[in-house]
Amino acid sequence: MAKRIADSTVRRLSAYLRFLEDFESRGLETISSEELAQRGGTTSAQVRKDLSFFGSFGKRGLGYSVPELAGRLREILGLGKEWKVIIIGAGKIGAALAQYRGFRQRGFLILAAYDANEEKIGRKLEGIPVRDITQLERDVRQDRPDIAVLTVPAEEAQRVLDRVVKTGIKAILNFAPTQLQAPADVTVKTVNMAMELEGLSYALTNRD
Amino acid sequence: MAKRIADSTVRRLSAYLRFLEDFESRGLETISSEELAQRGGTTSAQVRKDLSFFGSFGKRGLGYSVPELAGRLREILGLGKEWKVIIIGAGKIGAALAQYRGFRQRGFLILAAYDANEEKIGRKLEGIPVRDITQLERDVRQDRPDIAVLTVPAEEAQRVLDRVVKTGIKAILNFAPTQLQAPADVTVKTVNMAMELEGLSYALTNRD
Repeated sequence: MAKRIADSTVRRLSAYLRFLEDFESRGLETISSEELAQRGGTTSAQVRKDLSFFGSFGKRGLGYSVPELAGRLREILGLGKEWKVIIIGAGKIGAALAQYRGFRQRGFLILAAYDANEEKIGRKLEGIPVRDITQLERDVRQDRPDIAVLTVPAEEAQRVLDRVVKTGIKAILNFAPTQLQAPADVTVKTVNMAMELEGLSYALTNRD
Repeated sequence: MAKRIADSTVRRLSAYLRFLEDFESRGLETISSEELAQRGGTTSAQVRKDLSFFGSFGKRGLGYSVPELAGRLREILGLGKEWKVIIIGAGKIGAALAQYRGFRQRGFLILAAYDANEEKIGRKLEGIPVRDITQLERDVRQDRPDIAVLTVPAEEAQRVLDRVVKTGIKAILNFAPTQLQAPADVTVKTVNMAMELEGLSYALTNRD
């Protein structure tokens, strides 16, 4: 059943977890679906529906226990373990990701970055070693990373993805502005920066 | 009515537009809701529902005209005009965005980046001038940017957002890993890199 949950639901669960952690840090013990909905820009019916996929939460009239619901969401999102991540492409986006503090906080450990550029190989990218892409297959067998982040040019992305898939990595975050094809047992998420801006051009165009 | 459309619907419209442009570049003239759904990892019922918000498209049994639907989606998403963008924070994420080719292709023109660091002011970030943040208010009055992208540290983000809002900018893309408060007439989208990885940890955890 879990496989049927839409991407947009998973995104909302991530957002709810953030709000709950904010409430936790302020010492609040319970929260209503209305409060969660308000913070997330959605409806309380949507909140209840999203959470109902994963069993029963909360007591009618009392709302949700903040620490309990936060704990369950971390479990649902697979945040109870450390995930090992490699970055393919040691350019500007790779560097921005390597320094991003939010990953470590969430249990995502960046092992290494890979590049074909000899000037970059052997250096550090925000403390992360930059390795020769020719070592990729050997390193993956040894380090067993769970997730590969692709920050390579669009025209190379499919070829790099095919190579990563062959190593057995099953989850890929793609920053190249192109749609990639992968086998059904591999999850590819494409982060499209222009798409984020389109959400804003939509909002600006459709104002009252 | 347009204001009621959920963020997740707008994201899907952006995705459909990408697939349509891909079909266009390959010379295809019509497409079914099933084909669009398949590319987008959704259902044909969802595609028809998403498009129905914006009037009637397509002919029963014949599918959608690719150029016509692409044109309508560009219009809906507000991509018919050039949007002026400023970046606040000339760090690694700012640099990664300044070089991102996808923005220009979509009609997003980056005017300038702003920073408080004297070593950065007056230099170029991937061809974009880095200006003194103290000039922000004066420049906004003159250049009239539509969108501000915040790539500042989390602890400064709310203060910077308040300052940007005062200049009259109504659309903000926030890269700081923190939830920001803004007046109701200002649209803030927060891009959370850890949240993208959580979509993958969810997928890895809930595999069959």
